[in-house]
Amino acid sequence: MKPELAIVKIGGNVIENPEELQRFLTFFSDIKNPKILVHGGGKRATEVGKKLGIEARMVAGRRITDTASLDVALMVYAGLVNKKIVGQLQGLGCNAIGLSGADANLIHAHKRPVNNIDYGWVGNIESVNTSTLTTLITSGLVPTFCALTHDKKGQMLNTNADTIASELAIGLKQEFSVTLYYCFEKQGVLRDKDDDHSVIPHINLETYNKLLADQIISDGMLPKLANSFNALQAGVRQVCIGSTDMIASNPGRHTILSL
Amino acid sequence: MKPELAIVKIGGNVIENPEELQRFLTFFSDIKNPKILVHGGGKRATEVGKKLGIEARMVAGRRITDTASLDVALMVYAGLVNKKIVGQLQGLGCNAIGLSGADANLIHAHKRPVNNIDYGWVGNIESVNTSTLTTLITSGLVPTFCALTHDKKGQMLNTNADTIASELAIGLKQEFSVTLYYCFEKQGVLRDKDDDHSVIPHINLETYNKLLADQIISDGMLPKLANSFNALQAGVRQVCIGSTDMIASNPGRHTILSL
Repeated sequence: MKPELAIVKIGGNVIENPEELQRFLTFFSDIKNPKILVHGGGKRATEVGKKLGIEARMVAGRRITDTASLDVALMVYAGLVNKKIVGQLQGLGCNAIGLSGADANLIHAHKRPVNNIDYGWVGNIESVNTSTLTTLITSGLVPTFCALTHDKKGQMLNTNADTIASELAIGLKQEFSVTLYYCFEKQGVLRDKDDDHSVIPHINLETYNKLLADQIISDGMLPKLANSFNALQAGVRQVCIGSTDMIASNPGRHTILSL
Repeated sequence: MKPELAIVKIGGNVIENPEELQRFLTFFSDIKNPKILVHGGGKRATEVGKKLGIEARMVAGRRITDTASLDVALMVYAGLVNKKIVGQLQGLGCNAIGLSGADANLIHAHKRPVNNIDYGWVGNIESVNTSTLTTLITSGLVPTFCALTHDKKGQMLNTNADTIASELAIGLKQEFSVTLYYCFEKQGVLRDKDDDHSVIPHINLETYNKLLADQIISDGMLPKLANSFNALQAGVRQVCIGSTDMIASNPGRHTILSL
């Protein structure tokens, strides 16, 4: 039997609210099994960028990571947010180690190829360094990732946090029985996006395809579910989507995804 | 025989000059033995702070780390500077892992007690987590520290990079034969601070005390030498002070300190 591993991804909504973050970190610290945290950045990067005179550049509605924006991401995601979370987790007795994909060459990526749009310093993940990550985990450490990777040629790259979480889950499936948790502001995948009580308790591949066909999945949820089923089809045991309450010892309502 | 370990500290003068930094990182990557890098922050934190409207607060000529200044230190030291260095080292084939003292609880400190001055979020080091650090080093990783520690109660603390380097050296002396390198803008300790050619090649405890008595050591060098002899007396094998050239395979002139 492989040991259990929980990979938990939190986004901006949790990070921006200090009470909510502290509450989440307490739940996370209480998880007994080996675990990994992946965090997004939140609006703080936009705020800091604005004050530094660096406006987020958008092309066709997509954010472009130019050199100045990458500096802001390094400052806010890898510095401010990551180290505060690590400090807080340590205060809760959780032996966190803050990491980007460059550290110990844990996540190797390449700059996203330019087709119609040059997204700038954005990385597509190539591989996860499973052996070093396993060494860290089996040493009792709790890897705590910000959403940055590198190209092994000296360049840091901005990378989607949801994708980092699912690629870590896929990378570690040989060594661990992995459950991937996507925490966000709702209690799960909603059947009616305007009704917070319409959480769908379980989605499998068949019902997923039906939900897609019926156009029930809203825009923001589409990439999250695509990432999830990608991870499940690659051998991740289970994916859960919901609010941070779902990782509490007495978990709240959430959506469980499996094949 | 204990294995050799090189601990190299660089300051702002190296970090602020991209060519100089790349040159140093190439030398550093070429060191064959296990090694640790400790970096200061440089003027970038002051620049970023100014743009964010956070002025460095000074009391009696000493910098105070209030909450806003600590945020800037987290952004610039732990984020921007640390991750860029890690990315560059990875590009040079050196398996760096960027760390603060909070990560894996590697450096435990407490807030400096208030006597006449409250320095704010500044840490005095209590202990170095030698066993985890040794695990990382023996796994082939190259710990790359920024100058931040934590109090194990959730608070990050600004900490002098020279002191971090000497405390790491002292902490690891049981496992390793440690040489501590302090890189700065001169080629070594100068007999005449206005003559760059007056590098003193070797200082031992006896000549150190004579240099102190004769007031030959200039102000900025006093804490560096005090840290160095503190480390030597605690069992560190050797301390070297000079420019980054001293860690090149064909090292330049520098000052060697021993008991």
